[in-house]
Amino acid sequence: MSAEIGIPPHLRITDGKNFRLSSIDTHDKLGREKLTSRTRIRDCVDRMAVLQGRLAAYASNGILVVLQGMDAAGKDGAVRHAFSGLNPAGVRVTSFKAPGPVEKRHDDLWRIHVAMPSRGEIGIFNRSHYEDVLIERVHPDMVRARGLDPDAPGFWENRLEDLRNFETYLTRQNILVVKLFLHISPQKQRKRLLKRLDQPEKRWKFDPSDLAERQLWPAYTQAYEEAIRATATPEAPWYIIPADRKWLTRVMVAEALLATLESLHLKEPSADFSPALKAAQEALLKDGHN
Amino acid sequence: MSAEIGIPPHLRITDGKNFRLSSIDTHDKLGREKLTSRTRIRDCVDRMAVLQGRLAAYASNGILVVLQGMDAAGKDGAVRHAFSGLNPAGVRVTSFKAPGPVEKRHDDLWRIHVAMPSRGEIGIFNRSHYEDVLIERVHPDMVRARGLDPDAPGFWENRLEDLRNFETYLTRQNILVVKLFLHISPQKQRKRLLKRLDQPEKRWKFDPSDLAERQLWPAYTQAYEEAIRATATPEAPWYIIPADRKWLTRVMVAEALLATLESLHLKEPSADFSPALKAAQEALLKDGHN
Repeated sequence: MSAEIGIPPHLRITDGKNFRLSSIDTHDKLGREKLTSRTRIRDCVDRMAVLQGRLAAYASNGILVVLQGMDAAGKDGAVRHAFSGLNPAGVRVTSFKAPGPVEKRHDDLWRIHVAMPSRGEIGIFNRSHYEDVLIERVHPDMVRARGLDPDAPGFWENRLEDLRNFETYLTRQNILVVKLFLHISPQKQRKRLLKRLDQPEKRWKFDPSDLAERQLWPAYTQAYEEAIRATATPEAPWYIIPADRKWLTRVMVAEALLATLESLHLKEPSADFSPALKAAQEALLKDGHN
Repeated sequence: MSAEIGIPPHLRITDGKNFRLSSIDTHDKLGREKLTSRTRIRDCVDRMAVLQGRLAAYASNGILVVLQGMDAAGKDGAVRHAFSGLNPAGVRVTSFKAPGPVEKRHDDLWRIHVAMPSRGEIGIFNRSHYEDVLIERVHPDMVRARGLDPDAPGFWENRLEDLRNFETYLTRQNILVVKLFLHISPQKQRKRLLKRLDQPEKRWKFDPSDLAERQLWPAYTQAYEEAIRATATPEAPWYIIPADRKWLTRVMVAEALLATLESLHLKEPSADFSPALKAAQEALLKDGHN
């Protein structure tokens, strides 16, 4: 494969110390061209489909892809464009909404763990366990309503440590964790939200309460930065994906999963037969029902 | 309550460093008498039932009771005797057997987390996440069959660290974790296994493969010791319960859950009415349908 493909190293965060979102341009094209982006996604998906077959056959590893980003950052579109073409038998997409009454009674990671891919599977989380350290951090009254004190010393550090430990555990269990932050500018979000209102086909996605969250942009940016700083590790890196251009986002999401699959070095199964399979083949060939 | 009840402090392990099972007598009566043990269990259960009602009403905490012990240590009997009388709507007992094909594909803690009690509930695990660091440790070929290397540096330390982190996380989420090791002698196990064979009503519990595990007693003892050393913490202690006398085991298991419930200081709900409830009461009293 040529050298220009893949995700540029500066977008792969494996040590979050001092990380700042403002250091990454939301509008960057990363040297790609829109014209060839569809072809590149198709090539990625074709290769992913081959490797996905081996992932399922060996069943020694699973992959969890976490998609996070502000409203209208392009999460749904990235799933549709970058992963259509994979065998849905081995892909499970879970879109996490606000927790319902049963989920609220359980510990935060309960619904997350229930949805976790097994070895051999690819799991895609559209929003994830990170929502708890974003929304509740920006709205500390939600924490108080649960009888907890968000101002207690170490409260957020502990919650982030729990997420980091959880991902370390998953990695040790051969579940690879890939986290993608779709990095959009507030200007671009405004344009996309206005467009949603203009298009009857997309209007259902518009929720007036999104505007209140939009006003909290700096607080969300800070919460994201602290989450990424605390949980970007070599075994569970964060990828920061410029998201002002939908086509680029989709290519990069496809590149990220492809790179993860390639990192497993899933070898092509041997063409050689075991003696048992050889005997089975001979038995079938001699079978009366031909 | 009188001073003699409760679990003696030396059986509550909150710092596992240098812990040895041989320091605790399996045959100890702990100053209790068999004659009064049934009454004491009943008293414990009555008090637990009251506190369980409040636990469900407040729903701010959940409780997980982990029962571990060699075969015939009395786990099933402890559940039946120490917890019958609680409201089953708020108690969930999960007996973990050897993992099936779906469970094996998932990470080790997946089936454990799925069964976790929510806030307001009491969960009893008859065997638990600890089985993985016991059976597989004694039978390292099971690890190799999963494509992992049990001799890799830090392999068991990492698995135990994952369990410790998991329990720390649960505690932070207001799920209290209480771990009970039913400590039986090999002599007493022999007697109980022979008795199982003699009694047609109990014979179904006898599995000839248990005898092979019995031969591995020293290896299991060591695996238990290392597990307890690595995971006994102030927030998720291990209780070592002498288990050569069934009646004592059952009292102690009841005492352990009662002590945990008491530690939550679940106050009796106030007798005072809120204005809204007062108004509701008056409306009902004036209601035409009387």
